Amino acid sequence: MDKKLLTPGPLTTSYSTKKAMLHDWGSRDKNFIELNQSILESLVKLINGEDEFECVPMQGSGTFAVESMISSLTSKNDKILILINGAYGKRMKIICDYLNRSYITYEVSETEIHNINEIEKIIDSNKQITHVFIVYCETTSGILNPIEEISHLINRKKLSLFIDAMSAFGALPLNSKKIKVDAIAASANKCLEGVPGVGFVLVKKNIIEMAKNNSHSLSLDLYDQWQTMQKNKQWRFTPPTHVLAAFSQALIEHKKEGGIEGRHKRYSNNCSIICSGMEKLGFKKLLSNSIQAPIIITFIQPENSNFNFRSFYNCLSKKGFLIYPGKLTASETFRIGCIGNLDSKDMHNTIEAIKDVMKELKIKIH
Amino acid sequence: MDKKLLTPGPLTTSYSTKKAMLHDWGSRDKNFIELNQSILESLVKLINGEDEFECVPMQGSGTFAVESMISSLTSKNDKILILINGAYGKRMKIICDYLNRSYITYEVSETEIHNINEIEKIIDSNKQITHVFIVYCETTSGILNPIEEISHLINRKKLSLFIDAMSAFGALPLNSKKIKVDAIAASANKCLEGVPGVGFVLVKKNIIEMAKNNSHSLSLDLYDQWQTMQKNKQWRFTPPTHVLAAFSQALIEHKKEGGIEGRHKRYSNNCSIICSGMEKLGFKKLLSNSIQAPIIITFIQPENSNFNFRSFYNCLSKKGFLIYPGKLTASETFRIGCIGNLDSKDMHNTIEAIKDVMKELKIKIH
Repeated sequence: MDKKLLTPGPLTTSYSTKKAMLHDWGSRDKNFIELNQSILESLVKLINGEDEFECVPMQGSGTFAVESMISSLTSKNDKILILINGAYGKRMKIICDYLNRSYITYEVSETEIHNINEIEKIIDSNKQITHVFIVYCETTSGILNPIEEISHLINRKKLSLFIDAMSAFGALPLNSKKIKVDAIAASANKCLEGVPGVGFVLVKKNIIEMAKNNSHSLSLDLYDQWQTMQKNKQWRFTPPTHVLAAFSQALIEHKKEGGIEGRHKRYSNNCSIICSGMEKLGFKKLLSNSIQAPIIITFIQPENSNFNFRSFYNCLSKKGFLIYPGKLTASETFRIGCIGNLDSKDMHNTIEAIKDVMKELKIKIH
Repeated sequence: MDKKLLTPGPLTTSYSTKKAMLHDWGSRDKNFIELNQSILESLVKLINGEDEFECVPMQGSGTFAVESMISSLTSKNDKILILINGAYGKRMKIICDYLNRSYITYEVSETEIHNINEIEKIIDSNKQITHVFIVYCETTSGILNPIEEISHLINRKKLSLFIDAMSAFGALPLNSKKIKVDAIAASANKCLEGVPGVGFVLVKKNIIEMAKNNSHSLSLDLYDQWQTMQKNKQWRFTPPTHVLAAFSQALIEHKKEGGIEGRHKRYSNNCSIICSGMEKLGFKKLLSNSIQAPIIITFIQPENSNFNFRSFYNCLSKKGFLIYPGKLTASETFRIGCIGNLDSKDMHNTIEAIKDVMKELKIKIH
């Protein structure tokens, strides 16, 4: 029995998703081409983007997709405003440093969302800004950024909005008819519950059409990847065939569950069980409910309580549950994810296991 | 029953290799870290590089590994000689264009190997050259480049040799004690018979140690990947956990078969069966035996014989065998791979199937 992965990913996937990897595919064969096409079409449909968007897959982890989005869809003449409230916003800044893109940042603490009036002020006083980048759900803290509200402002200012939707895509609403966005990067192995090894960028047709010669990298050249796939429906370079077979199955199961709404419902329920269970045990959540995404929850390490993260982690791991260390710069925390192929029973079992671990380790929260 | 993949990859893998993907792994958990470490150690051992080499894995296809090797291990001050006799040599040139690296090329036809005296002349008359890049086996044609001989020359000239060993690694000899090389790029899904989604670079310690700040890309920064893994044995960004689990199993099976020697023996036997079988049917090989690697064989499309590649491919595919189109710029060809988890019986069956297809399609070679 595999351990339950209560992390921000790789996640627990269904057995049927993993079983889809028990076959070998010829990457230039008809059957694989059909499988690949159906994945791309499903992803475009998930954002209601059939008339406006293209989906371009990219080998590698989510960061590869984000870097290929930024490098291929912006140029050295652009000026980017990066909204930062965690490690993934910072990572977009680091990517812009590698790429020599001009940018400014508006950074708030990892427990806060950006002030919409402040964003407007920054835009108004920096007339050269062409793009705004934001992370939908920052798994650093688990914070939910108000992308719909922000998208309205960016749209009113006629700027281009790029979203890193990595840990949100498939579980949090992202309807391109409501949220005006030019490009979205995400990956197979978060809320879509595939296995890791492939990401993708959803991008407006008119944007990708203009993206020739922007990319710094052959491997990460999204335009080139898109062009080749337009021509013969094939990947430029060897695709991760087994990972894609699993992704295809995961998307079928996502649809069966009721799509984004269905998945959001299960994750929200998972999140509630973890939050109330942990609170009963005396743990304090980092974020208030209004900005807590039902993806991953950060808890503050209790002081004067015999709590030591390493022992806590190891003890829980022995019982079959893997949690995640904190990633905050400011305070000592740990995280429990509520995504992946896990249900309310798994969440109740997690809480029971934590209760037992607290007894074993004599953790007493006052 | 899956079709037999007689291609340059993705290949037919063993069932046990695929079965290793039926588990979910926490990418920051002890068990996964151990699995990952054992893969890296096995790869270093395969080139007898324990005292001198580091193995740095890279997400994505083989091209991602090659690009990360070039971008991270050379700088803008270097000058590269690229030896080209096929598409993968050309791809290294394209990567250098993306990266703004200075280079010159020595290109010969896809059916020829480079003249060693000519290489020496080029080096002697271009004193700024610091690096030489070569492809071990060019799957464009299936040609075997004489890397040992070339390495001796490069070593004598005190230059740095980088090898794209993608389709050779694990089946053709590559002993770092005999072949003086600074960096080798390869991937999991060729002769090592893993599944696609991860590549790796074997690089001398003193070279990777000096590679800080070279890379153009965060995702493909080999130094950063290495540094992080040195510190905590973890990947910087989400690794393709299932692909790596399969890779680990594939490496166990590689060792069981007798390592590089054992695999070379099976592939050579596969190659002989295909070559002699096809010759009996009247097909002509592109290359002479002396430069034919036992990896993939290029056949010339017979003229005036009712031969049409599309129909030939489809007919063979229906019988359960996938072959590969040609990639030559000069002549109409097709390719049959002899690598992957296939044995002499599979090769004989392939020849029988081709015989039947020729009858069905009334292909007559004069």
